[in-house]
Amino acid sequence: MYNIIQLSSGVCASEGFFADGVSAGLKPNGANDMAFIYSEDECEIASIFTTNKMTAAPIRHFRAKGEFKTNFVMINAKNANAMTGTKGIADIDEILNALTALHVEIINPVMSSTGVIGVRIPKEKIINGTKLFNLNTKNPHGAAKAIMTTDSFSKEIAFKVELEDGSSFNIGAMAKGAGMINPAMATMLCFITTDARASKQVMQEILDEAIKTTFNAASVDGDTSTNDTVMVLSNGKSGAFNKEAFKDALHKIMLFLAKEMVRDGEGATKLVTYHVTGAKNDAEAQKVAKALSDSLLVKTALYGEDPNWGRIASTVGASGVEAYEETLSISFDELCVYDKGELLFNDAMEEKAAKVMKQNQFTISCDLGISDGSFTSYGCDLGHEYVRINADYRS
Amino acid sequence: MYNIIQLSSGVCASEGFFADGVSAGLKPNGANDMAFIYSEDECEIASIFTTNKMTAAPIRHFRAKGEFKTNFVMINAKNANAMTGTKGIADIDEILNALTALHVEIINPVMSSTGVIGVRIPKEKIINGTKLFNLNTKNPHGAAKAIMTTDSFSKEIAFKVELEDGSSFNIGAMAKGAGMINPAMATMLCFITTDARASKQVMQEILDEAIKTTFNAASVDGDTSTNDTVMVLSNGKSGAFNKEAFKDALHKIMLFLAKEMVRDGEGATKLVTYHVTGAKNDAEAQKVAKALSDSLLVKTALYGEDPNWGRIASTVGASGVEAYEETLSISFDELCVYDKGELLFNDAMEEKAAKVMKQNQFTISCDLGISDGSFTSYGCDLGHEYVRINADYRS
Repeated sequence: MYNIIQLSSGVCASEGFFADGVSAGLKPNGANDMAFIYSEDECEIASIFTTNKMTAAPIRHFRAKGEFKTNFVMINAKNANAMTGTKGIADIDEILNALTALHVEIINPVMSSTGVIGVRIPKEKIINGTKLFNLNTKNPHGAAKAIMTTDSFSKEIAFKVELEDGSSFNIGAMAKGAGMINPAMATMLCFITTDARASKQVMQEILDEAIKTTFNAASVDGDTSTNDTVMVLSNGKSGAFNKEAFKDALHKIMLFLAKEMVRDGEGATKLVTYHVTGAKNDAEAQKVAKALSDSLLVKTALYGEDPNWGRIASTVGASGVEAYEETLSISFDELCVYDKGELLFNDAMEEKAAKVMKQNQFTISCDLGISDGSFTSYGCDLGHEYVRINADYRS
Repeated sequence: MYNIIQLSSGVCASEGFFADGVSAGLKPNGANDMAFIYSEDECEIASIFTTNKMTAAPIRHFRAKGEFKTNFVMINAKNANAMTGTKGIADIDEILNALTALHVEIINPVMSSTGVIGVRIPKEKIINGTKLFNLNTKNPHGAAKAIMTTDSFSKEIAFKVELEDGSSFNIGAMAKGAGMINPAMATMLCFITTDARASKQVMQEILDEAIKTTFNAASVDGDTSTNDTVMVLSNGKSGAFNKEAFKDALHKIMLFLAKEMVRDGEGATKLVTYHVTGAKNDAEAQKVAKALSDSLLVKTALYGEDPNWGRIASTVGASGVEAYEETLSISFDELCVYDKGELLFNDAMEEKAAKVMKQNQFTISCDLGISDGSFTSYGCDLGHEYVRINADYRS
């Protein structure tokens, strides 16, 4: 037995972690655009990176280091340092050398970037930015805000986990999302800190499992970026650990952040949960859930608050899995609109269904009626704001 | 040797074919919404239907008939007769029985439908519509216009094929597209007539091959509808045939219509050709080409006329094929913007690239620099019009 208690904090909820955001002049409006997470003790690191083959320089740099511990992660917005080749990696070396020369307590720093692809990172600005870092600051909210790109709100959460023996540990996290969110992998930046006594191996195992039903079940636009990163840093400062409790808390943190990211999807006005059941197996259910959360025709119908269940049925049929018109059922929240070949839809039902769709959050359930495979995914609508944001993101 | 000469006509270019459009009151604005193609001689039929598992009633009805010849295809817009179960099939029987009772020269008629999914077809209106059919009319343009749904222009083409021995045959076609256009299959309605002496077997073989590089290489929104149909009807009236010439002409017809459909994609302002070369093999090149034509981030950048080549690179990397930053090259028409790890982009180049993107049609080339796999696909941009059209298609 254990208790999980939510804290109103972010990455500094874990003992011994410091964080802040500063402005290095990368965002044209002068908003903070660089953040750090510093731990007074060295941390074990578990991580998952993008499956995109055009892996950004920070990820290549991280991987090239092999096995290591760190006490510092630096993040910048506005420039992804992707498609920048060996020069992009050399830029990171130069930046991190300047950083450690300035702040001697930093060991093996890690850099993480998000923003435009295919532009050299502005080294001087970033090095000047590192001069503003005060490592004794606990301003997790400032850090979470600084890493935002097209996000409209910052994404943070933290839990205290009380174990049966009276000991406890903390987990805190921040993330940025907005565009290029896709179940192919983490597809955003997410930094999780903990003072639990968790080894890299155990954390990695739990992270690999938790990602399947959280970040990998979230879709904004079906694109997978070059920089996607989830990192868990543990400094062990609490001395406490329990695998089940840690797993539970980490899953809660990641699910919360995954849903927050979809809710804040570029231009999104609705967070829709796709609950697929009755599929041949879980993998087929996942295929359907992903097809639904990616379908442009479904997403635009959501935006128009149009209970066009025919598009849901068509998308199920197009997803490539075993499915039959005669066994399929579709519901909007508790309202069943199509039941195993029975056309239930009429004007009265349309009115009720439209009411469900006017909500900011609701569930679309598809029972394929074949076997017991199930999966739940999270998607949003696609409206004019998405087009506006993405038709000219770079400027 | 043979000559292919374009004719300014559609499905009536082939000898012995008649066609027209009428209004059955399905489109609220009173526009024509039903069409027929009639041949005075019975036709062999080659066909390809959607891969969507929620196959619409007209396709189920067609398949249930087994082997047959016909001289009549009837098409209606506004209602797809999909997700309507056995009632949808019984509706077709009733409609076709009424049709043949009225027009005794019709043999084994075929019905094809497009429009909203999940609503019973308005039988009475359609039966009344068949009373307006004058089978002696040659109005191919009227037929092509009647089958339009969200299309903004009708799609027709015809060729005369002159063979070496002085004989000749004709091929004519009409199609509707606009939304739910995806390489997973034909993904629209397309009717092709010919007076060539082509057997079902030979036509089917040629059609199966031609579709790969034409309709299956076209994407508007990555969705696959319940009603997609390509049908080739041959009445043999010309007595002429040559396999190579027929293949060539049919491919030209299908490629033209596929590109027309993308050009008229819902809300599209640009037709973009994605030319992928240097992939490990053709299948991997096709994967990249499909990923590019489907990517929301690429499509919105096209709409914004923003030469954001980083999104092209990221999409190549996310497509799941073998790809390397160091071997990839990207061009907009002839302008190379990224060359095997070399960041070429600067303000002068951006200006040139933006000029390319202001065109209605242009080519984005990606050379993966690995081997000689290649594929060409066709896509369009995604702008506010797509959202407007699809946020409330049913009303």
